[in-house]
Amino acid sequence: MRVGILTGGGDCPGLNAVLRAIVRKGVPAYGHEFVGFRDGWRGVLEADVQPLDIPDVRGLLPRGGTILGSSRTNPFASADGVDRIRRSLAELRIDALVAIGGEDTLGVAARLHDEGLHVVGVPKTIDNDLGGTDYTFGFDTAVSIATEAIDRLHTTAESHHRVLIVEVMGRHAGWIAVHAGMAGGANAILIPEQPFSMDRVEAWVESRFRDRYASIIVVSEGAVPEGGAAVLTSGQTDAFGHARLGGVGDWLAHEIERRTGKEARTTVLGHVQRGGTPTARDRWLATRFGLHAIDAVQAGEWGMMAALRGTDIVMVPLLEATKELKTVDPALYAEAEVFFG
Amino acid sequence: MRVGILTGGGDCPGLNAVLRAIVRKGVPAYGHEFVGFRDGWRGVLEADVQPLDIPDVRGLLPRGGTILGSSRTNPFASADGVDRIRRSLAELRIDALVAIGGEDTLGVAARLHDEGLHVVGVPKTIDNDLGGTDYTFGFDTAVSIATEAIDRLHTTAESHHRVLIVEVMGRHAGWIAVHAGMAGGANAILIPEQPFSMDRVEAWVESRFRDRYASIIVVSEGAVPEGGAAVLTSGQTDAFGHARLGGVGDWLAHEIERRTGKEARTTVLGHVQRGGTPTARDRWLATRFGLHAIDAVQAGEWGMMAALRGTDIVMVPLLEATKELKTVDPALYAEAEVFFG
Amino acid sequence: MRVGILTGGGDCPGLNAVLRAIVRKGVPAYGHEFVGFRDGWRGVLEADVQPLDIPDVRGLLPRGGTILGSSRTNPFASADGVDRIRRSLAELRIDALVAIGGEDTLGVAARLHDEGLHVVGVPKTIDNDLGGTDYTFGFDTAVSIATEAIDRLHTTAESHHRVLIVEVMGRHAGWIAVHAGMAGGANAILIPEQPFSMDRVEAWVESRFRDRYASIIVVSEGAVPEGGAAVLTSGQTDAFGHARLGGVGDWLAHEIERRTGKEARTTVLGHVQRGGTPTARDRWLATRFGLHAIDAVQAGEWGMMAALRGTDIVMVPLLEATKELKTVDPALYAEAEVFFG
Amino acid sequence: MRVGILTGGGDCPGLNAVLRAIVRKGVPAYGHEFVGFRDGWRGVLEADVQPLDIPDVRGLLPRGGTILGSSRTNPFASADGVDRIRRSLAELRIDALVAIGGEDTLGVAARLHDEGLHVVGVPKTIDNDLGGTDYTFGFDTAVSIATEAIDRLHTTAESHHRVLIVEVMGRHAGWIAVHAGMAGGANAILIPEQPFSMDRVEAWVESRFRDRYASIIVVSEGAVPEGGAAVLTSGQTDAFGHARLGGVGDWLAHEIERRTGKEARTTVLGHVQRGGTPTARDRWLATRFGLHAIDAVQAGEWGMMAALRGTDIVMVPLLEATKELKTVDPALYAEAEVFFG
Repeated sequence: MRVGILTGGGDCPGLNAVLRAIVRKGVPAYGHEFVGFRDGWRGVLEADVQPLDIPDVRGLLPRGGTILGSSRTNPFASADGVDRIRRSLAELRIDALVAIGGEDTLGVAARLHDEGLHVVGVPKTIDNDLGGTDYTFGFDTAVSIATEAIDRLHTTAESHHRVLIVEVMGRHAGWIAVHAGMAGGANAILIPEQPFSMDRVEAWVESRFRDRYASIIVVSEGAVPEGGAAVLTSGQTDAFGHARLGGVGDWLAHEIERRTGKEARTTVLGHVQRGGTPTARDRWLATRFGLHAIDAVQAGEWGMMAALRGTDIVMVPLLEATKELKTVDPALYAEAEVFFG
Repeated sequence: MRVGILTGGGDCPGLNAVLRAIVRKGVPAYGHEFVGFRDGWRGVLEADVQPLDIPDVRGLLPRGGTILGSSRTNPFASADGVDRIRRSLAELRIDALVAIGGEDTLGVAARLHDEGLHVVGVPKTIDNDLGGTDYTFGFDTAVSIATEAIDRLHTTAESHHRVLIVEVMGRHAGWIAVHAGMAGGANAILIPEQPFSMDRVEAWVESRFRDRYASIIVVSEGAVPEGGAAVLTSGQTDAFGHARLGGVGDWLAHEIERRTGKEARTTVLGHVQRGGTPTARDRWLATRFGLHAIDAVQAGEWGMMAALRGTDIVMVPLLEATKELKTVDPALYAEAEVFFG
Repeated sequence: MRVGILTGGGDCPGLNAVLRAIVRKGVPAYGHEFVGFRDGWRGVLEADVQPLDIPDVRGLLPRGGTILGSSRTNPFASADGVDRIRRSLAELRIDALVAIGGEDTLGVAARLHDEGLHVVGVPKTIDNDLGGTDYTFGFDTAVSIATEAIDRLHTTAESHHRVLIVEVMGRHAGWIAVHAGMAGGANAILIPEQPFSMDRVEAWVESRFRDRYASIIVVSEGAVPEGGAAVLTSGQTDAFGHARLGGVGDWLAHEIERRTGKEARTTVLGHVQRGGTPTARDRWLATRFGLHAIDAVQAGEWGMMAALRGTDIVMVPLLEATKELKTVDPALYAEAEVFFG
Repeated sequence: MRVGILTGGGDCPGLNAVLRAIVRKGVPAYGHEFVGFRDGWRGVLEADVQPLDIPDVRGLLPRGGTILGSSRTNPFASADGVDRIRRSLAELRIDALVAIGGEDTLGVAARLHDEGLHVVGVPKTIDNDLGGTDYTFGFDTAVSIATEAIDRLHTTAESHHRVLIVEVMGRHAGWIAVHAGMAGGANAILIPEQPFSMDRVEAWVESRFRDRYASIIVVSEGAVPEGGAAVLTSGQTDAFGHARLGGVGDWLAHEIERRTGKEARTTVLGHVQRGGTPTARDRWLATRFGLHAIDAVQAGEWGMMAALRGTDIVMVPLLEATKELKTVDPALYAEAEVFFG
């Protein structure tokens, strides 16, 4: 079989490890040939490919990012997208596609499967908000990086009377914030699933100051105060009277300083969370996803994707990943709350 | 309730995080009082305790080891062990015990439960060889450390024509070797579950040299060559004609040099694998084990221990942990073998 | 002798290592007794002390922050500051002071020395902008953390067409930016010593996009565009038309997006750079500073501070540290420029 | 000019960073062309080269090892070595050589300079035992790795009554042991410069056990007990009566167990210390060495090598590096001894 592989959406540690595993197994075990599409669906639409044989995947296991490049191109955005994909695959004599990506990429993959194309998926999201799988690769790396940042803030927190805020990824789901906050010993964790009360935040901060301890607050980039985004984006001004607004982390620092009179400082980790070498666990998971995906291609299990269940990799329908956003389990959040304040 | 806590067996990153979680929830949520027994069952036998209140667990989350100390004392080694424990608990007015430990510690806990004592367990093993739970805390940390070592060896392997060997923990089960070997891109992984063939090892090494690549071999400390331990311990001599034998890693280096004429070097990670701050994942798991253990104490679920199943923490009978050694799944090992040679 | 120790200014990895070294040598070698003043000069003014004997410094070597706490209190801010210090030292029977801190703390120390007090200094600055010493402890740690962040951004930069900005510490001097930028392979480094031209930044970014490579820009928090701070703080608006301004990193992202139409994202490391365990080098330097400082106390070398020159620790007058800001050597910056664009 | 570059001796983090800096400056600033000799002097003797232009050095900054490969081939081992080198350089039209290596490589470079060849050197040694420069790149990385290992052992040391031994690199000089031991808080540091007394080691260990603390001992691979190597290699037997001898670390563990009856465990870091990504400081130093080396080529400063003096890079005669082994300064060792026992 000739198999095309693409990586879509934001980059994520472990993408390259998936590529490597697919090729390292597919070539010798099944005699597959591989081509890599450049920049996600854009490469498929434009038949823009690069070779992907065993020498091409050498050294990829520990390497973050994706050697195939990525984009947010959606083939269904144009009326003839599916036709172009069919032509492109025919021209390149591609028998099957492995689509590695998140909600958008897998959503496209599911629709192409409905159109009769041979597609297998591998779920990818830093934010851990895809359904159908216990975890996705990249998430453990993001949590580790955020936790290490929180660890470092503890020493400042012990030496000064300050409030330290870490803004982490998570636009719609607070998984990174909850995991890193629990692992780092945060005094409060604010997530998108639940608008936060500034009165409650203020009470936590003040209660910590009474014991001479500073506070560390972890906030998802998508968290909003009660009253919603309108509150968040209402103009704040800095020390010079200039208008000021970064993200929710900056807003929170400003608001805490205003309410408590104590210094508050924000760290915005940004893309640092999605870069660099994957953790051992993410490499292990990405490798296994790749192995099972190529087994599924060989077995003709079209429309399925690799998923982690406990310690097993299983194949589940692509639709399970995308039918609804996987948000933080309230029971888990309640466990995290034990350590607030 | 007055609750006694003990940590038994070898130290493991996350033990302190369990202690912290138990105390941080048990005191405010249930009004429990806690005492820590020193050095595992020795402290219980001798009523040797230390205070364990909220201030005592401050800062423990990221700290490796155990502030309670540990030992391998087995109360059933002496005929009056159980009586002494009863007396000790009565004297200290302890209502319930939380035993954190591995096969030995939990085995004792199960027998004390049979004797009618109020015991709840938390499973602990670096080696991941306890049953009843997907993983135990400390394992992810050990795998991370071993993987980082393998990562570092790759650059030497690319620059010189050498065989590099990493001996990792795992006396009876090769979980660390398989996980770290898969995550680090090892060219061979040798585990206790399956005696290894030196002919096959030699063939892998030679095949890699033909492509101008060096080899990296991960070996569990408990792995043995075909023919068994007798082969392993038969006298080797070093360059000076002196007898020489460290562990299996040293033996393997010697044997490869003898067979291939190429230099082979061994890294023995030893206790480095079980020390230092836990990974984010291990802190999260240890914290959750602690929270669920103290909930179980409160609920009177005696004879049970905390366990991970997928993303959930559940309580299972203590006996599940210890009834048989959890060895490496052959299907997982077969996945690792894809990358050998 | 009874010796008082204080730590002033912002916290810095290695402060605790200095304390430990002073006590571990001073007690057995010279028979000194130690007390720690709480929160810098505030503790001296208010005779607020904590014990500082060998057991108190156990475990401090790898620990970031300062167990003594810190503040920015300046005793010369009030007319009777010096008198209060004299009274406080007399009351506590303190024979000598070791002041560990930056420009402000050492400036106060120098003036107290002029007043006849027995003072020895240890220089401390994350930013490396103190004179008289090749480096100060904490700087290597900050550079390492910033470099690791840049490393992680490279994988995103290779996978997407983006501009990635890292804002690092350095209000008046760009040492962290230059060192981390050189070590991390940044495509541009913007420092306070030299107002930057947005036209030049734009040209670098565009030239990199032509080769299909993204750009990574490291910017000191104190860097300003040509035209000065007024340009920087002129109102920017975000996607929703809301006024927006974080620091220079946010400004730069906005300006690059406006000029090039490409996405730009900012990481603000903030206090993460000054927290956590010191690097091996910083621990070594902090330890040696502590040992030489207590030798100087014993030898009565008042008004002097420890300094690194090559591989030697020497004692230099306190005034050398503070007489002028140590800014980035233009020759070093020129070396960094080799890799721009 | 056409410039040939080679890397000789053991690999060392930062070698690739030197290559990158030379090429990144030499091509655009001076119009040089570069070729890389494969496997050190072997490549020069055999005119075995690989291209080395700007695209070839992309991504090399953080990468350990050397893309040129290395060997221990010595051209002066054969009578016609110099002639073969002349012929090889003539054939390849090479005008100048940059030799990056340790004692052997630079010794050869110095002799070739005497023969009238155009050679510039860059000093490289993990062990930091070359003269003429404050430090060499790779050393800081090795110290960091060893320190991190010691950090991890502390938690076991606090939880169990054990002696933990770390064997680090350093055949003739104990720089890594002293730096890592000081940074990691070792209780004893044994180095090649000074045969160690087992009675003294035993006394330290026993004194620590009296306070209920375990001991951590750092030992250079080249350290020998009083009485010399003969003592070290005299046959030891393990628990099964089998002959046993790894390196000095294993010997020490055995000897301590025999004398004190307490468990002792050894970690042998081996090649892990010389692999992986260089620290920020080593990348900075390697980059600067490369820049100054190519400036020296351009300026025709033959027979010189780059060296670090304080914060400056200077050019010194090649002979300074090799005229004598740079051993640990006794004054520095005395500082480390403050913390022994």
